[in-house]
Parts: sequence; C-alpha cells; structure tokens
Amino acid sequence: MLFALPNGRFFLKCRACGTEFEDSLEAVCPECFGPFKVQFDLEKAKETLSRASLEKRKKNLWQAHELLPVRDLKNAVDLGAGWTPLVRAQRLGKILGLDNLWIKNDSVNPSFSFKDRPVATGVARAIELGKKVVSCASTGNLAASTAAYAAKAGLECVVFVPATIEANKISQALAYGAKVLAVNGNYDVANRLANEAADSFGWAALNVNVRPWYAEGEKTLVFETCQQLDWRAPDAVVFPMGSGGLLCEAHKAFSEFEGTGVLGQGEAGKVKFFGAQGFGAGAIVNAFKQGGKVVPIRNPNTIAKSIAMGAPGDGDAALKIIRDSKGGAEDPTDDEIVGAIGLLARTEGIFTEPAGGAALAALKRLAESGKISRGDETVLFITGNGLKTPELVGSQNLVSIEAKLDCVKAVVEGKKALAPIAAVC
Amino acid sequence: MLFALPNGRFFLKCRACGTEFEDSLEAVCPECFGPFKVQFDLEKAKETLSRASLEKRKKNLWQAHELLPVRDLKNAVDLGAGWTPLVRAQRLGKILGLDNLWIKNDSVNPSFSFKDRPVATGVARAIELGKKVVSCASTGNLAASTAAYAAKAGLECVVFVPATIEANKISQALAYGAKVLAVNGNYDVANRLANEAADSFGWAALNVNVRPWYAEGEKTLVFETCQQLDWRAPDAVVFPMGSGGLLCEAHKAFSEFEGTGVLGQGEAGKVKFFGAQGFGAGAIVNAFKQGGKVVPIRNPNTIAKSIAMGAPGDGDAALKIIRDSKGGAEDPTDDEIVGAIGLLARTEGIFTEPAGGAALAALKRLAESGKISRGDETVLFITGNGLKTPELVGSQNLVSIEAKLDCVKAVVEGKKALAPIAAVC
Repeated sequence: MLFALPNGRFFLKCRACGTEFEDSLEAVCPECFGPFKVQFDLEKAKETLSRASLEKRKKNLWQAHELLPVRDLKNAVDLGAGWTPLVRAQRLGKILGLDNLWIKNDSVNPSFSFKDRPVATGVARAIELGKKVVSCASTGNLAASTAAYAAKAGLECVVFVPATIEANKISQALAYGAKVLAVNGNYDVANRLANEAADSFGWAALNVNVRPWYAEGEKTLVFETCQQLDWRAPDAVVFPMGSGGLLCEAHKAFSEFEGTGVLGQGEAGKVKFFGAQGFGAGAIVNAFKQGGKVVPIRNPNTIAKSIAMGAPGDGDAALKIIRDSKGGAEDPTDDEIVGAIGLLARTEGIFTEPAGGAALAALKRLAESGKISRGDETVLFITGNGLKTPELVGSQNLVSIEAKLDCVKAVVEGKKALAPIAAVC
Repeated sequence: MLFALPNGRFFLKCRACGTEFEDSLEAVCPECFGPFKVQFDLEKAKETLSRASLEKRKKNLWQAHELLPVRDLKNAVDLGAGWTPLVRAQRLGKILGLDNLWIKNDSVNPSFSFKDRPVATGVARAIELGKKVVSCASTGNLAASTAAYAAKAGLECVVFVPATIEANKISQALAYGAKVLAVNGNYDVANRLANEAADSFGWAALNVNVRPWYAEGEKTLVFETCQQLDWRAPDAVVFPMGSGGLLCEAHKAFSEFEGTGVLGQGEAGKVKFFGAQGFGAGAIVNAFKQGGKVVPIRNPNTIAKSIAMGAPGDGDAALKIIRDSKGGAEDPTDDEIVGAIGLLARTEGIFTEPAGGAALAALKRLAESGKISRGDETVLFITGNGLKTPELVGSQNLVSIEAKLDCVKAVVEGKKALAPIAAVC
C-alpha cells in the first residue's frame, strides 16, 4: 500500500514526516505513526472544476467530486445526501441582532444528520480498497449513517454502542440492518473494542482507519454553502465541535475552493471561524479562553452528547484556525442549549438535536458580546435532527380539554393559563 | 369574497355549479355547497414557465410558482422544503423484479414529511387572506408541518389532537411553539372541534377551509420528479392514500405540466396511477377491487395511522384516475407494512413510517402480480419519516456482549445466533 504518487489526483500525506501514500487504510502513518491528511492536486482539479461545471451537475454531495476522495465515480454511493437547504433566518436574526443570518439545515440529510457527508466518502474509499464490512463505534448519528450507506452499498455493517444506550437512539441503525453490538461498558470501552475488532477482522472502521478519507466528506457542507451564497464566502461560520474536525475540514474547503478559482481571491481568508462545545465538555473552548493548548477533560458531561469529547483529536488544529481567523469559541450550559433548541424551532421552524442547540446558544453569546457583529454575513450550521431527542421538548403548551368550543375559547383567550397537561374547562 | 375573475392567474371553481371565485376561505361553495378546486390559466402560465426558466430557478418547492396558488411571492414562506432526492433503487428493484425503480424520498423535508408541500401553499394563502392564526386537527405529520410553517411565518398555531396520542407524536409541534389541545375523545371528535373552532374564531384551518389551496402544494412532488427524470413522466407512480387527495393532485400536476408544454404531448396520459391503503382501512382499494363507488369504513384500523381514513374525501376522484389510467390499488396488512419498512431500510438506506411501508408493500404486490412490469419506469413516493415511529423496528440484530474480542468474533462468525438483547460470551 506504500506508493508515493505525487501525480495522483489526491493522496494521503503524513502531517508529521511528510511521506505520501496513494491509498491506505491505516489509522496513522506506518513510517512514523503521525496523523494523515488527504491532499488534492488543485491544478489538476482546476481542469474540470469551475462555477460553470458545478452549476451543470446534479445537486448532491458528489457535485465537486474533483475535491473528494473517490477514484471512480461508480463507487460514489448516492443516498441523495447533501444539497440541504440554506435558509435566511430573519426572525431569529432579529432576536439575535444579526441582519445577515443564514442557517444550513443538515437535519434533513437521508439519515437525518450531517454524518451522511463524511460517511459517503468513507464508504466510497472502503469500497475502492476492497472492504466488505464497515464498522464504527457511536451513540447515534454515525451509527445511523454508516448503517444506511452500508445498506445502499450492499456492505455488511457492525456498530458498537455502549450497553447503556437508549433504545430509540439505535432503532435507525437496526432498521437499516446493521449488527448492533451493545458492549458492557461506556462509550470509551465500546470504542476501544471497535478499534480492536477492525484491526483484527480487517474491517473499514469509519472513524478510525478510514478517518482521513471520511473527514474529507465534511467539506461538502462548505462547498454547497458557497454556491448557495452565489459564490461568496460568508464573514462568519459557527460549527458545533466534537473532535474539532468539522471546523478544520470547513477551513480546508474554503481554501480548496479559493485554490481552484471557484471562490475569488481573498474569499477564504475573510472567514472568521467560531466553534461551540457544551459546558463541561469544552476542552477546545477552555484552551481558547485561557490560552495555550487543548487539555483533555476526563469525564466530559453535557446534554449535547454527540459532541461530548474529552480529548478532541483535532482540537489544537481547530484552535489554531479559530485564533488565526480572529474567530471565537463558546461553551453554553445545558439550559442554554435546551433554550436554543426551542428558540430555533419557534423562530425558524427547524427542529434540531442538542449539538445544533449548542451551536445556536454559542452564536447567541457571540452576537451579544459583539464578537459577531450585526452586519456580518453569518452561517449557522445545524448538523442534526430533533426527532432523535424528542424528550428535550417541554410540554408547557400542551393542554387537555373537553371537546367543547367554550374550552377552546378559554384556552385561546388565556382565561386559563396554559398549564402542562392540565385539564381546563 | 365573491369575485368571478376569469382573467386571474388562478381562481377557485366549484366542481358542482361551476361558479368561479378569485379568493375564498370557505370549505365549500357558498352558492351550492359543492366542493372547490383551484384552476390555473395555463396560457398565462406558459408566458414565463418553461424547462429553461425552471432550470434557472432556486430549487425549492416554489420553483414552478406559476402553477401554485400564491399571488405575491413574498408570501411564499421558504422553509427549504421540496427538492427532495429522487434516487435510483437498484437493490430494491432487483428484489422486486423491477429494472427501472426510483424512490422520491420526502422523509427529508424540513418537518420530515411531504406535508410541508401542501402546508406551504396553504399558509401562503392564509397570509394573503389576512389570517393571523392557522390551525389543524392531526395526529402527527400535519401538526408538525403546520406548526413549523407558522413559526417561520410568525403566525399563531393551534393544533387539535386526540387525548390518547403518544407524547412523541406531538413533541415536534410543541417544539415549534404551537398550542396543542389534547381533546378528550378520538380523532373524529378532535377534528369536529377543530372545524367548529376555525369557523367560530375565523382561523385558517389547513385541512378544512384552506384545503383547496393547501392541496395544490402536493403537485410539487410530481413537478420535481419530472424535472429529476430529465423532463419525462414515469410509466407508473405509487402513492399512499389517505383521503386520496395526493393521488388526485399528482394527476393534476402531470396534466398541468403537459398543458404548459413543460412535458411533451402524451406524457401525462401514459402514467399509470397506483394507490396504497392499509388493510382494514382500504375504502378506496375495496371499491377498486369490487367495482362501484367508495363505501366508507366505520372504524378504519391499520398500523398506517396517518392514512387511516374511513371516509376518504377524494376517494371517488382517486378511483376514477386509477381506473382510467389502467393502474391499481392494494391494501397490505400490518405485517406486510412493517416488513416493507425493513426492506426499504435494508436495501436503500431509507427509513420511513408506516404510510411509506404501505406504499412499498403495495408495490411489492403489484410487481409480483405483474400489474407493474419489469420494464416500467416506476416512482415510489415515500412520504414520511421512520423516526416518528421508531417503536416498529425489530431488535433481532441487537446483541449484548462483554467487551472482549472473542465475543465479537463469536457474533460475527455466527457461532452464537443473534438473539434479541441476549448476552453472548
């Protein structure tokens, strides 16, 4: 698997020793154990990639395939993911004091989170490297997406979850036909076992040995956003941060779009990057606020479980991007996160999970403190779906009534205050 | 409100007495109590509607606005609905013996069902007719969609549900800020109260007085499908049927697209229409199989609750379209519906609710009996999202294990059969 191939359309490069590999399913560089990154030959990409060519292509996440890691487009499994709506958020913007707010709504991907983007490229590479089984450790979104792509591609799928997981969180992966192994232990235990199993059985583990390829799919969020903004980059972007990898890939996406001439000169450089974690799981946010490097948190604890990572793998890289771009980072509390889920739903009709709530709650802090200013064209990335965590919705607007018009009247006129599941009339 | 306006871009026409009205929020014709239908001036629409103009426009459900009931596009609330994926279903097609199967996946609309389409046009008209409150009776999808659009538009929303409803089914409407009135009684009781309240308080009731405008939005499913098929009409379409209205609107959409020259001559006429209801709630299917008119069913009973209508309002109209087009209708059992939900998820990575399962289960029967043949280009319409009914997913692929590689090996090699939540090793 060790072919240095500088003329390839894309290749893996070790960030530590610089060795290049055409294809590999290794978690780290076999030469020096350094981390891998995928690099694209932008000059080659330019030959066919342009605004005009993009506008002509089918609107799914494979649109800018010159900048995605797939060698043959027949392996680009199409679940219909990507090209999710970018909507103007005027009502929310008014409340936050932002005149130019957009929401990229990724709650409507086929498996109902942004994970369909990285899983798409990860599964494409798994197919190209001859794998028949894909796997992951997850507590929700990644499991669902991996299982959905495996189903569509006709691959086997094995998902490792902690035994304590709620049944609702894995119904989707089960429906798609994945084998779900509920491991006696917490997420870390399940994750370690998943890695061991992938090594031992030669599986393509999406967030481990496929990770470099997998991560590249996240760039499509930014590619689409730029096109939806008529080929502008926004002034500010706000992402939830788990490992910090999504924010890093977003940064890479702006650079590659500028490097291939799809964005104008200087567009990528103007973007300020903002990141959100949950309070109690804010390793990157802590480092940003206190200075210095990311210090892991032993027991990360936040209601936003899908981004609760104690030791964010791309934390320092994300931190550098945030600092260099004069961006920022916030770690809203559970109350702020739940409040933001409601605020988003009531103002924009978008129902998200806690990771999306964390992103909005962070944006709220950033707008209030002036770190993001009224005129900034800002894109808030909503990465997951509220139907996966319906238990967080309050019932203060639910009222039991007798089937009489007078009872409706009483409620509507507010003669009786709305009380949780209380009978009126 | 009684303006005959034959020169308007669109108008209401009573299907019984033929009287025309420009604008009205009446459930039935005030002259004769006949049912209303919206008619468009196709010659006028042609002036700006064409394949070329459609291709240039933003891809959301307002794209073919010449054929949608909105007088001023500033009232076209944009939640990002529409332009859902049309995906090739090769793995499912192989199992069904269909070489040319497509799935229109509407589980990924912003409120996670196809209801965002009719609610979009219904709410636009409610705004244009000066309403401040929208309402509906519903047990799920319609409530969620109405609440989401009301949130985005800044309108008040009141939703009537039967008190027996599961909390999960209304969490979405509550999140969007709707007032949810849980009425002591079944759906029919809640529905009657909703109608009474709309009359009494002058609300825009989506599925009652706004219904003619509301129904038109359903046409966008077909408009998009034709464009996604490179301006072909398919040979066969399969829809779930509640009232039967969706199938009727689909028929109207093909006709209007042909009538404006967007589809070629004869394209609309070649489409065979197929409908699915659940066994025990198959009033239209019964009439199709036995001949004659639709006879209401007193207590419709199927797992596909969102399409369980005893007296389908558009049943006879749907029946005529099915018969005239040489289509068909099937009423799969609960077991077939649940089986089809799993089949769709495992083969195509699409997770749907029972109404979608019913459509696929019907298609399975139709393919097996040869009513839809191998070569027919067939589109299956998946109208709702499986996350709303996660309890229907089986757990036979869920296995509890100790955190040891040997246990994974045992499961994978099948030494121990996969047992529901049983510990192995």
